[in-house]
Amino acid sequence: MGLTSALARAAQVRGSHTALVYGDRRLTWSELEKRVPRIAGGLTRLGLIPGERVAVLSLNNDLYAELFLAVPYAGGVIVPLNTRWSEVELVKVIDDCEPRILAVDDACLAMGQALARHRPSLTLLFIGHRAPGHIQNYGALVECPPIADHGVTGDDLYAIFYTGGTTGRSKGVMLSHRNVLRGAAIAHSEGYYGEEAIYLVAAPFFHASGSWPLVAVTASAATVVILPSFSAEGALAAIEKHRVTESLFVPTMLQMLIEHPKFKSTDLSSFQTIVYGGSPITSALLDRAVSALPNTQFIQAYGMTELAQCAALQHRYLKGEHRTKGTHRAAGRTCYGLEIRIVDEHDNVVPAGQVGEICVRGETVMLGYWRRPEETEAAIRDGWMHTGDGGRLDEDGFLHVVDRVKDMIITGGENVYSLEVENALAQHPAVRECIVIGIPSGKWVEQVHAIVILHHGARATEESLIAHARSLLAGYKIPRSVEFRTDDFPRSSANKILKRQIREAYWAGRASGIS
Amino acid sequence: MGLTSALARAAQVRGSHTALVYGDRRLTWSELEKRVPRIAGGLTRLGLIPGERVAVLSLNNDLYAELFLAVPYAGGVIVPLNTRWSEVELVKVIDDCEPRILAVDDACLAMGQALARHRPSLTLLFIGHRAPGHIQNYGALVECPPIADHGVTGDDLYAIFYTGGTTGRSKGVMLSHRNVLRGAAIAHSEGYYGEEAIYLVAAPFFHASGSWPLVAVTASAATVVILPSFSAEGALAAIEKHRVTESLFVPTMLQMLIEHPKFKSTDLSSFQTIVYGGSPITSALLDRAVSALPNTQFIQAYGMTELAQCAALQHRYLKGEHRTKGTHRAAGRTCYGLEIRIVDEHDNVVPAGQVGEICVRGETVMLGYWRRPEETEAAIRDGWMHTGDGGRLDEDGFLHVVDRVKDMIITGGENVYSLEVENALAQHPAVRECIVIGIPSGKWVEQVHAIVILHHGARATEESLIAHARSLLAGYKIPRSVEFRTDDFPRSSANKILKRQIREAYWAGRASGIS
Repeated sequence: MGLTSALARAAQVRGSHTALVYGDRRLTWSELEKRVPRIAGGLTRLGLIPGERVAVLSLNNDLYAELFLAVPYAGGVIVPLNTRWSEVELVKVIDDCEPRILAVDDACLAMGQALARHRPSLTLLFIGHRAPGHIQNYGALVECPPIADHGVTGDDLYAIFYTGGTTGRSKGVMLSHRNVLRGAAIAHSEGYYGEEAIYLVAAPFFHASGSWPLVAVTASAATVVILPSFSAEGALAAIEKHRVTESLFVPTMLQMLIEHPKFKSTDLSSFQTIVYGGSPITSALLDRAVSALPNTQFIQAYGMTELAQCAALQHRYLKGEHRTKGTHRAAGRTCYGLEIRIVDEHDNVVPAGQVGEICVRGETVMLGYWRRPEETEAAIRDGWMHTGDGGRLDEDGFLHVVDRVKDMIITGGENVYSLEVENALAQHPAVRECIVIGIPSGKWVEQVHAIVILHHGARATEESLIAHARSLLAGYKIPRSVEFRTDDFPRSSANKILKRQIREAYWAGRASGIS
Repeated sequence: MGLTSALARAAQVRGSHTALVYGDRRLTWSELEKRVPRIAGGLTRLGLIPGERVAVLSLNNDLYAELFLAVPYAGGVIVPLNTRWSEVELVKVIDDCEPRILAVDDACLAMGQALARHRPSLTLLFIGHRAPGHIQNYGALVECPPIADHGVTGDDLYAIFYTGGTTGRSKGVMLSHRNVLRGAAIAHSEGYYGEEAIYLVAAPFFHASGSWPLVAVTASAATVVILPSFSAEGALAAIEKHRVTESLFVPTMLQMLIEHPKFKSTDLSSFQTIVYGGSPITSALLDRAVSALPNTQFIQAYGMTELAQCAALQHRYLKGEHRTKGTHRAAGRTCYGLEIRIVDEHDNVVPAGQVGEICVRGETVMLGYWRRPEETEAAIRDGWMHTGDGGRLDEDGFLHVVDRVKDMIITGGENVYSLEVENALAQHPAVRECIVIGIPSGKWVEQVHAIVILHHGARATEESLIAHARSLLAGYKIPRSVEFRTDDFPRSSANKILKRQIREAYWAGRASGIS
């Protein structure tokens, strides 16, 4: 089964039901089924050959959502790009995945043009509102004659999502049709994304968590409401207007939502389910959210892009006995159809209660990293995805995430890999040594913090180092604060910087950011 | 993912939860996880080599249920055999699938011994209550040292279910681990077999519909209550005692249940969901059942062994508007993750509303028929399972089953292929020609009816023909009534007997048995 087969089913069983809502635009499953073969025909006319990539650099909109179906229909692979990345970062990604077409909206047009200058073989496609005359316009695609479904399915590559990497360079996570449809089925098994769902996409499509709702609602023939980007006010208005039943929020979004002045006056009675995840949530925030939305079910999920949605979740254990036992602070229990185990550094399974690396096996494990066979082999061994996260399973089978082995900072729901920021700062001539860690932030849960030791006699200010980082990195990766030290960093007997120990000083009295 | 991985997850997430209930015996998921590797060790000690078959001829019990997990754990393939079949029929099946081990209970011991005499390489294993000294006893298996999971998974063969065939010989339907686990996920997506389910298995394990609940509850770590065989009284007692929440019944069982004298005095308040299917249900019976069980949700399912559970179902459309439109008489709508289409005799898709052959595509489509590559190729073309059933899709995507192309009689939930019975009757020296059809039966929905033309001057009675059939066929396949004719059968221009026309005369004023 592929995504386009799911579309065919949706049109068959609920043709007149609303599929997509974006602003004032609406499409039914039947209309979508008629448009997709035409758009696929247009992509083919633009030169797309089956197997080739179509990258998209855009805020969320309905045309972008259609591309998630039209690209596989034409036999292509969709590559959603992070709109927050710098040109330097995007150029690396474009050179890595070599797309034939790059779709851009108004907000990303200038960046798209810069990328097209860098890579002349790239055809630009405009999916925004004010069409510039000189680039291909999406509207024309819909007028193309329809083509036949190319029939990509099963283990065929569906999408590539770029994530930051522990090595400091972005890696393309390859997800198959089976991966994402199995991920959707897991969600359906747990009772959400069902056919009556009206799902609000609050996360950007370039995050797997933003685009997999598109897969899940296609598989169940439900409805998806799309916001161009997240704002608490926009989300509240959409929930009330469209009678939204479900959404996924990272804790930062959830906090913004319940703290918004209009929160109390908004009719949220339709809102049945909130999935939260993507970064640690504090008990305090969870308690506030649960009491602010007493009729909403909260589902805690643990997952990652490499696992095509969540691997563990819980929704029945946030109260009562489990609260006393601390179970409500766990990430949840292994999802239907998957296996989770905790291993030591020699890949031996450790007993319940003991901390080790979280490994996951099942049909949602990614195909691998695009053109990185060695990193793929390192990550997936004997079918087990080695997540790089530290955790333990308790006696009741609840997974507790205790550490991010990968040295990752999660700020406002975005993953920032320390090494990437450290590499950028280290390019500044004054920097002798630096480490980057996440420190507590009321708004972002964690904020990126750099600790720098300068070369003897060299000078640099916080502002100059931040400006240097800005020239190389996406905004959310840039340190919010820089601290200068003259003493050397504490080191292990193997001479490794004891980063975790340095970090802990900032988190004293808090649950290390993971609750 | 394989069945044994699902067991590992069940033990991890709900170790102390009851997995199986059979009479006074109970096992938790943790206990089951400890027993299965030992039983698998015992099977290996009995000579089972990975890839070989373990056949089972037994009424339902807890040990039989364990074999559904222990056999794949040891790398084997389970073959549940129909306990109603005659020795002649079972010998054919045993010769076809060549099992290494045959497990039998008390009720089937004598037949098992007869089969072992026919096939000396067969090792008998006793899974009953009174162990005869001279054959291998299951109890000893549980004492064996545990072995490691053989790891069969994905497209590996899980089980072979023998079904009657249109050609008059039984065919072994090969189901993979992916097939049955995907089938379970479909049920989970629709909200049943969930982790809180207490599922009553009322159907025999040798039917796919009897054993797939074992798969589904293993995948969700729920509870299964096992009856040795169906009786209305036994089912009512079990529902009350174990607070059963769900079950699947064929219409005959449902009727026996609601007509039983103890029905009204039994506490059925726990009973949330009844799936019915396997044969047509009349509107009258459905109405009676719905009013007798007002708090129970009824789910209508369309499926077949070759599709590892159901392909279409409905549960929201039995009332109101859909009732006016007749939608409640439909088989339902295409399940999540599958595709259904209706084709003409040239495999072209026909428009909505038009009758053709029902075809299904998706991960539940069987691997094929055991050692019958030609019949497999005929049935599965381009991934589409050609069901042999006639049907149409209406404008709302509801599937209506209108005919059994395969010329099958469904009597009390058992499938009887006319051709097989006709072949048996034709072996009687007095019979010149005969046809076998299903005619209305208050109890069995359809009953097997033979219409016979004798050779000129030959003599035979209804009793003698039934006795002749009994020597060759399982009890449920034997004609309940025989009608003698002297006129030739009406024939088409191509000289084919117009069986459908003959049959229709018996169904005048009824919905042809399909509602």
